Amino acid sequence: IHESQSCFPNSVSSLSVDAQSLQKQIDELSTFSDTPAPSVTRILYSENDVLARRYIKNLMGLSGLSVREDAVGNIYGRWDGYEPELTPVATGSHIDAIPYSGKYDGVVGVLGAIEAINVLRRSGFKPKRSLEVILFTSEEPTRFGISCLGSRLLAGSEALEKALKTTVDGQNISFFDAARSAGYANDQEDLSGVFLKEGSYSAFVELHIEQGPILEEEGISIGIVTAIAAPASIKVDFEGNGGHAGAVLMPNRNDAGLAAAELALAVEKHVLESGSIDTVGTVGILELHPGAINSIPSKSHLEIDTRDIDEKRRNTVIERIHQSAIIISKNRGVGLSEFKIINQDPPALSDKSIIQAMEAASRELDLSHKLMISRAYHDSLFMARISPMGMIFIPCYKGYSHKPEEHASIENIANGVKVLAVTLAKLSLN
Amino acid sequence: IHESQSCFPNSVSSLSVDAQSLQKQIDELSTFSDTPAPSVTRILYSENDVLARRYIKNLMGLSGLSVREDAVGNIYGRWDGYEPELTPVATGSHIDAIPYSGKYDGVVGVLGAIEAINVLRRSGFKPKRSLEVILFTSEEPTRFGISCLGSRLLAGSEALEKALKTTVDGQNISFFDAARSAGYANDQEDLSGVFLKEGSYSAFVELHIEQGPILEEEGISIGIVTAIAAPASIKVDFEGNGGHAGAVLMPNRNDAGLAAAELALAVEKHVLESGSIDTVGTVGILELHPGAINSIPSKSHLEIDTRDIDEKRRNTVIERIHQSAIIISKNRGVGLSEFKIINQDPPALSDKSIIQAMEAASRELDLSHKLMISRAYHDSLFMARISPMGMIFIPCYKGYSHKPEEHASIENIANGVKVLAVTLAKLSLN
Ligand SMILES: [Mn+2]
Ligand SMILES: [Mn+2]
Ligand SMILES: [Mn+2]
Ligand SMILES: [Mn+2]
Repeated sequence: IHESQSCFPNSVSSLSVDAQSLQKQIDELSTFSDTPAPSVTRILYSENDVLARRYIKNLMGLSGLSVREDAVGNIYGRWDGYEPELTPVATGSHIDAIPYSGKYDGVVGVLGAIEAINVLRRSGFKPKRSLEVILFTSEEPTRFGISCLGSRLLAGSEALEKALKTTVDGQNISFFDAARSAGYANDQEDLSGVFLKEGSYSAFVELHIEQGPILEEEGISIGIVTAIAAPASIKVDFEGNGGHAGAVLMPNRNDAGLAAAELALAVEKHVLESGSIDTVGTVGILELHPGAINSIPSKSHLEIDTRDIDEKRRNTVIERIHQSAIIISKNRGVGLSEFKIINQDPPALSDKSIIQAMEAASRELDLSHKLMISRAYHDSLFMARISPMGMIFIPCYKGYSHKPEEHASIENIANGVKVLAVTLAKLSLN
Repeated sequence: IHESQSCFPNSVSSLSVDAQSLQKQIDELSTFSDTPAPSVTRILYSENDVLARRYIKNLMGLSGLSVREDAVGNIYGRWDGYEPELTPVATGSHIDAIPYSGKYDGVVGVLGAIEAINVLRRSGFKPKRSLEVILFTSEEPTRFGISCLGSRLLAGSEALEKALKTTVDGQNISFFDAARSAGYANDQEDLSGVFLKEGSYSAFVELHIEQGPILEEEGISIGIVTAIAAPASIKVDFEGNGGHAGAVLMPNRNDAGLAAAELALAVEKHVLESGSIDTVGTVGILELHPGAINSIPSKSHLEIDTRDIDEKRRNTVIERIHQSAIIISKNRGVGLSEFKIINQDPPALSDKSIIQAMEAASRELDLSHKLMISRAYHDSLFMARISPMGMIFIPCYKGYSHKPEEHASIENIANGVKVLAVTLAKLSLN
């Protein structure tokens, strides 16, 4: 008997996504923002983040999921299977949004997961393994400089658990004070309850916009992710003597801002030297102190992101950036007071049987699909440490992401939700 | 009869500065700061600025000066001469402080001016021309991007009067709302009362720390300023497409942050190309938008300061910076959405008879002195538009300024106060 027939009495083509409600939810969620529409800014543990979380928990409840939250605010919504002793199948993504970004990144994988549950319920499906929808805390590194904070911790990072005890945000608010202000971390500073054991899930699948232009350009509905590129992030601080912009003559300067400018250009140079189209590097943060037009910068701070699907090649780029930072510091007589690799994660591979399930689902739904790699990282990168993992991509407008113009059509989102629903059904019965 | 004997019955060597009180006032004034000691941050019309102004007005009153304020908060303290119909002699400086700067820049020329008045009173001196101490509003461009706001307006800048109607700060607070919150600008938006006619003063003298290392290195007590270098400031904005730091491949990027980094280095290059030690240029502000580690900068903003004692040479540097901005914009496919010259002031020359008065005062006080140029600009640059002008410099530690380590010894300050007092006396009798 064909696998899809064992879960859906009728053909999968009869599965119905409530596209109108889903679009309405995406639009409503986007209003919880610290910046005006069309931009979205939703920072971890902010008032808007708390309101958005409440909105999601309410939707989970309406979809019949039983909700629990852990100490850092990962939110779990569970649909019990008829063999509840089996390890469950999970899906999910994030709803935090970097400053002035868009309304689809992450959100499609949370609201879409809840809608996939609705699709399965409406079809009459009964899960064998339980199904869980997870909202991960702070996929974006905005507030505390730590990406995938929730999934990284959930996947057992003791280094992160330790680091969080002394982590503060740009306003010097501690991680724990921030978490408590949002109603989390009530058991002092013990986060061990957040850890999940390897094998806690039989599968994890994340639905996400591609954040690249390939699917749209090739007119393909579904991307099936085979691997996630390995991200690394670096913080750099330079220090000079500063001084008055009029009075200190050029030969007497050691300008921390110009050191930062040189390093930013060196990042680009070393990335291009790798010779591979798959190597990328970005200076997204560059701050000068004191930041006055008539003051020579006495301090500068850069945050650098570099990624590759080849871990070794990426690490070579990091080494070259470090060498450049040292040389610039010497040549300019500027102190290199910090060169810190914040994270340097290995890439993750999708699980073969999950890839097969996603391919089969796409085929049964008659949706064009292709295998691809994810150049952006996702919570899936960390879920892969404790569970077989897979990701479903949908096309997005011009590949735009992390800006207000980010857009995915509701048709493409609905297709993704259907593939997710069928994939979850298959994995649940596995 | 010798000029100094006509004003001081006793020898000028008997003039006494109350160094202890003056140091106490400098220390007390430094506590009106938005950042912790030893740094000082005093932003126009902030609560601390208002408190500091009150402190100065109180001291003016205690020194027997009659106080008035104009609509933008320039504060005048007057000691009537015995021929009050003659045009008065003025002195003064500013008390606003850029973020994380020190406690002597400007302050020495305000508190020192009040103490010079005290010195003259204690000596039994009676002014013929009235003497005025002026506290200028916002010498620093911190809040509204306009340097020497008070003196520029007072000296008759109609362009500034017009611009202020639409000027807002970084928080989008209008100049007029900010001024009203500090108790100024109560007559709607009419600032014509601030303007002073050319010839309103027979002389203006400013006492200031050197903000350069020359006097200290050469062991000289008094710098007599013959000219003030010509400052210009420029605002530049670049715009690109931004996007996700992982997903957008390098060839598809137009990174506004890297355009800004290139322009910052180009500013340095063009300044050095001038071939003159007197040409300086600084990028004190460089901001990226959205400012997230995993987001390609879609906007960047630079503020550039460049100065020279040769106006033509400085304007050549500005032209080259503009050319570079255009070329960078083309090469990177980034939009140059703004290249705005905010001000491009001519240099100012000190008045010969004031130079002679300052030299004579230094000689009579037996203080080593030298003629020099001011590389930093000052309110004197604008006072020179309506009055004969002169400046007295005193040594400061390592030439440091605009940072917490800025320091001038009380002995050097007291010497400057004495030279100022004697100079004012001479000019008053002139
Ligand atoms: Mn993102
Ligand atoms: Mn995401
Ligand atoms: Mn200054
Ligand atoms: Mn000053």
